[in-house]
Amino acid sequence: MQRQIDEDLKTLKEKLLRMAALVEENIRLAVEALKERNQEKTQQVFLTEKKINALDVEIDKLCLQLLALRQPMAIDLRLITSAMKIEVELERIGDQAVNICERTLELLKYPPLKPLIDIPRMAELAQGMVKDALDAFVHQDDDLAREVCIRDDEVDELNNQIFRELLTYMMEDPKTIRVAVELMLVGRHLERIADHATNIGEDVIYYVKGKTIKYYCEQGRRRG
Amino acid sequence: MQRQIDEDLKTLKEKLLRMAALVEENIRLAVEALKERNQEKTQQVFLTEKKINALDVEIDKLCLQLLALRQPMAIDLRLITSAMKIEVELERIGDQAVNICERTLELLKYPPLKPLIDIPRMAELAQGMVKDALDAFVHQDDDLAREVCIRDDEVDELNNQIFRELLTYMMEDPKTIRVAVELMLVGRHLERIADHATNIGEDVIYYVKGKTIKYYCEQGRRRG
Repeated sequence: MQRQIDEDLKTLKEKLLRMAALVEENIRLAVEALKERNQEKTQQVFLTEKKINALDVEIDKLCLQLLALRQPMAIDLRLITSAMKIEVELERIGDQAVNICERTLELLKYPPLKPLIDIPRMAELAQGMVKDALDAFVHQDDDLAREVCIRDDEVDELNNQIFRELLTYMMEDPKTIRVAVELMLVGRHLERIADHATNIGEDVIYYVKGKTIKYYCEQGRRRG
Repeated sequence: MQRQIDEDLKTLKEKLLRMAALVEENIRLAVEALKERNQEKTQQVFLTEKKINALDVEIDKLCLQLLALRQPMAIDLRLITSAMKIEVELERIGDQAVNICERTLELLKYPPLKPLIDIPRMAELAQGMVKDALDAFVHQDDDLAREVCIRDDEVDELNNQIFRELLTYMMEDPKTIRVAVELMLVGRHLERIADHATNIGEDVIYYVKGKTIKYYCEQGRRRG
């Protein structure tokens, strides 16, 4: 017999996946807007952000209801508390996509510094981490979750590279400082997205294994 | 008659307060280390960080136990789920104090750019927000929590001011770029501390009022 709580938990997972899909879409759009210098796409990001926030509130409410009414135990309980944490991370990732758009609107006031190569690459990596962290959650795959955590180092490395390259531009030509600083901030926003994905990875490991492997990738995340 | 859960919740609050005290201490120490160019103090921060992380794991475990064993309802349930979220925010604030120390160790390689005035002021504001957010939690004071959220704007404003001032240094003398960029990052770390305090404020409002006033200060936090 299907337990009522199984139905509820399925709904919860579906809502989280829907939220994650919107968040991934917003990372993609934000970086496209930056690359193409496309103001219209930034507006799409702001609109989708509203939907993300609405889902966030909905998920939080559902979790609390399940805790109160279903009195879940063991792995069901961990699923719900993890979902509450993951939903916070997703919402913060959404904030970072909005931050990138705000940088883009600022950058549009100046001529482009250089064609963007590393930043879109970094965005792709970060987006992949978000996707896989959620896949790991849905399939209770702690190996995949651990792998997501490890990939954070790659994003950090890329961000350091971007940072150093922009520093040389600034030193060679102070007229580039304003634009270079904005691009450095975009790099940090992407790095933070990867950090949030890493946090989700840790939440998944806890949910699946029932023990805290927090601080697993503490070093990497801290840099964020 | 005293309910068992009241005892448990008292313990939970005490642990959170202990964690918050360590986190506040680490913000203070990190900024002192930066201001005084004191390497020894950065080491103290790294040591205290370990204690913060241990408390974090302990609190998370306690919350899960309470959810599983006491089957709390209504405001008790909200207290526990809020505590789980607040504990995450405190841990992240601790990470930011460590980040500031890493910037300081980098800055020690260069001569000082200027006497630091706005950064310590910003640190004081951010630290006060953390303290008051926790006070609001312990005393179920949603007015104080709301006030904490509003103070976030002041920190953002100060950070923008620091940012603009450092930009002018960089433009006037490219030799200052390396140091100025590190100081900009310190400003952002402090801004993020204020953001986390704002998140705690929102969690407290939810705990006390039972409804989501998330995105109350969304605009401010997003910039972080």
